[in-house]
Amino acid sequence: MNVISIREMTKEDMEKILQNAAEIASGKRKPDLRGKILATLFFEPSTRTKLSFQSAAQRCGMNVLDFLTEQSSLKKGETFTDTIKTISGYADVLAIRHPKEGSVRFASDVTNKPVVNGGDGGNQHPTQTLIDLFTIKQLKKKIDGLNVYLVGDLKHARTMRSLLYALCMFGAKVTVVAPKGLEMERSYVEEIEAKFNTKVAKTNEMDIKDADVLYICRIQSERFEDPLEAKRVTEKFRLTKESLIGSKEELAILHPLPKINEIDAEIDRMPQAKYFEQAHNGIPVRMAVLEYVLKR
Amino acid sequence: MNVISIREMTKEDMEKILQNAAEIASGKRKPDLRGKILATLFFEPSTRTKLSFQSAAQRCGMNVLDFLTEQSSLKKGETFTDTIKTISGYADVLAIRHPKEGSVRFASDVTNKPVVNGGDGGNQHPTQTLIDLFTIKQLKKKIDGLNVYLVGDLKHARTMRSLLYALCMFGAKVTVVAPKGLEMERSYVEEIEAKFNTKVAKTNEMDIKDADVLYICRIQSERFEDPLEAKRVTEKFRLTKESLIGSKEELAILHPLPKINEIDAEIDRMPQAKYFEQAHNGIPVRMAVLEYVLKR
Amino acid sequence: MNVISIREMTKEDMEKILQNAAEIASGKRKPDLRGKILATLFFEPSTRTKLSFQSAAQRCGMNVLDFLTEQSSLKKGETFTDTIKTISGYADVLAIRHPKEGSVRFASDVTNKPVVNGGDGGNQHPTQTLIDLFTIKQLKKKIDGLNVYLVGDLKHARTMRSLLYALCMFGAKVTVVAPKGLEMERSYVEEIEAKFNTKVAKTNEMDIKDADVLYICRIQSERFEDPLEAKRVTEKFRLTKESLIGSKEELAILHPLPKINEIDAEIDRMPQAKYFEQAHNGIPVRMAVLEYVLKR
Repeated sequence: MNVISIREMTKEDMEKILQNAAEIASGKRKPDLRGKILATLFFEPSTRTKLSFQSAAQRCGMNVLDFLTEQSSLKKGETFTDTIKTISGYADVLAIRHPKEGSVRFASDVTNKPVVNGGDGGNQHPTQTLIDLFTIKQLKKKIDGLNVYLVGDLKHARTMRSLLYALCMFGAKVTVVAPKGLEMERSYVEEIEAKFNTKVAKTNEMDIKDADVLYICRIQSERFEDPLEAKRVTEKFRLTKESLIGSKEELAILHPLPKINEIDAEIDRMPQAKYFEQAHNGIPVRMAVLEYVLKR
Repeated sequence: MNVISIREMTKEDMEKILQNAAEIASGKRKPDLRGKILATLFFEPSTRTKLSFQSAAQRCGMNVLDFLTEQSSLKKGETFTDTIKTISGYADVLAIRHPKEGSVRFASDVTNKPVVNGGDGGNQHPTQTLIDLFTIKQLKKKIDGLNVYLVGDLKHARTMRSLLYALCMFGAKVTVVAPKGLEMERSYVEEIEAKFNTKVAKTNEMDIKDADVLYICRIQSERFEDPLEAKRVTEKFRLTKESLIGSKEELAILHPLPKINEIDAEIDRMPQAKYFEQAHNGIPVRMAVLEYVLKR
Repeated sequence: MNVISIREMTKEDMEKILQNAAEIASGKRKPDLRGKILATLFFEPSTRTKLSFQSAAQRCGMNVLDFLTEQSSLKKGETFTDTIKTISGYADVLAIRHPKEGSVRFASDVTNKPVVNGGDGGNQHPTQTLIDLFTIKQLKKKIDGLNVYLVGDLKHARTMRSLLYALCMFGAKVTVVAPKGLEMERSYVEEIEAKFNTKVAKTNEMDIKDADVLYICRIQSERFEDPLEAKRVTEKFRLTKESLIGSKEELAILHPLPKINEIDAEIDRMPQAKYFEQAHNGIPVRMAVLEYVLKR
């Protein structure tokens, strides 16, 4: 059993993982995966994702092997296939991150061990999406019918695509908010609208007064040719105390982290800021994912 | 409960840790911290301190997460605060080393998890001081009344300041031995003398015949403008078989390690050389420290 | 008890390790080394050897400390001796790899903890040799009397020397196949022939029709002054489907991995390809080695 892409998972599977993660988070139970080994193969640095997988594994009683790519035989010219096949003999499950789209699926094809996608390029980052869903559900007790705003550079932050997919699957009312030119690809949004028989609101304005959940991601100023335009847009989409005026009292602000300056530090101390809680939810969700791939 | 600075610990706390470390070293008992995770965050390399913390944690049944700073999101521009807050969700205790003074205290302010200072700049390195005290007590059965000589560049080796503080607190008779210009700051020594109602002897000469314990640290030749002076001083303060002539038979030589050439290799084979034993004492002392911060 | 060199082990010791590894591989039993710590000190990168040691240790219930040499005090000028002595206090067994011949033996002289050689320069890599023997024995149920072909640059691939030694000790009929100029040193082969009262066949031709086992290693094209000659030789000694025509059906192809292009990828899918199985055998064999050095 692998976790490669949200789009390949059934709603039942996802609900099962979210349910298990909730039980784990509540302290009711803990997966017992003692004697099993997780290998983390991160071909692109991502400290928090890697540590979160490792911590989750240890919380389940597992051991961890860290494949340090910069020291690896890949440098000597070994193929990716050979590396995966070899490491497969040392561990019981592989968590792989790779800059190239599709490479984690490829890895799952050459090994008989379960593979969890820790992010492949801009493509898929399914455990992040599960953490996002879990966090919303923990905070709001439901996803169905919630007003969820996805804000930022939705053209390049491609993990937002899986998130939109999953939110629509779970019945959220989604608004996508992006600067002109950085909107999510229209055909993709339409595909999702058709698939889940829903309507996604689209806007270029930072009007968030209806939002129950505000999910913000970074706008990289280097995307703009005109530095003045870059400044204007990043300022407009930057979250400050002022930009929250008029928003719902119960608003939950999420962010995949790391954040740079897209959220003002004073927001961190406000009750709406839920992104550190979201990050910490990585542990129970990834524990549930490890149990899911190892117990089936 | 944190361990940030020796100066904030009571004598009772320190004695409790030393007592527990002695019981652990004797094999009488072992802290049981199974299921707990230590995260090591070393923002400056220090192999032996990090491995010593990790080994101590494993000896207590804990798991270890190593935050590799050079791969981290800090590079992407994340604040130190965000990094600490995020990692806090993955572990039960943080051991932090950082080149900047005060940064470990700052970290302890933004997390609700216990923090142990693994050295912040030239400021504090409290577990090293505890190891030093522990080693002296194991070797001499007491600290009170012992003649302890602190030798070397006492101006820059600022961890010697905490050691002086702790030795005076425990009643040792301390002599500080430094080359001219590299003496410990006079006002600091006077503050300690007043606080503990004691007298610290000060000299520029390598006359160690009264010493029960000789604690030597490195003199960096690059501190001197005149290369001839540098050579003269480093030679004079270098420990050789000859420089031990006339010293007490029971003299114990300590060094925080790593050493370069300030101790002649032939000393290593002499019974007075206790610095490897001192390094190994890092394990029981850090086990006791982990127990101290996690059990309170 | 150390494992530094195959030449210092008795046949009885090796047979015991192979026997224990077979029991471990079959799932019949598992060494219980809980509470023990393995330190891996790799002064030269070798991802698979290191991970294989770490995985083996974890499968025995041990913890692992990884000494990251590039972050170490060696950079500050600490001697190798001091590093080994210090780390010895943190672990129960050391697995060391070092680019310099003899350095692992030297390390074993300055520590009282067991040392396992993870490869020192081109000299010895005893656990690899044990894995090779184990793999042959698992596949063929015996070593005695088998036709084993060692193929490639036998002048520089010096671990082939220990393998030849061990194969002759266990009664295999060995043929060494190397390009002209890259043959194994004649005096070494003669020494082995005399010691084990056997005859090693020597050839420059890739005629492998008699082989039960084909053990291939890489020919580095940079060894040749003439690029045309390099191309001719590497082509001739490259393993393809064609080069297997006429070989025994039950032929087993081994390779220490990582491989670059000396074996055509289509071979990977053939039943004769046993090198990934060989790599995975690193786990039970190193488990047996850890048990051997810690239990004696």
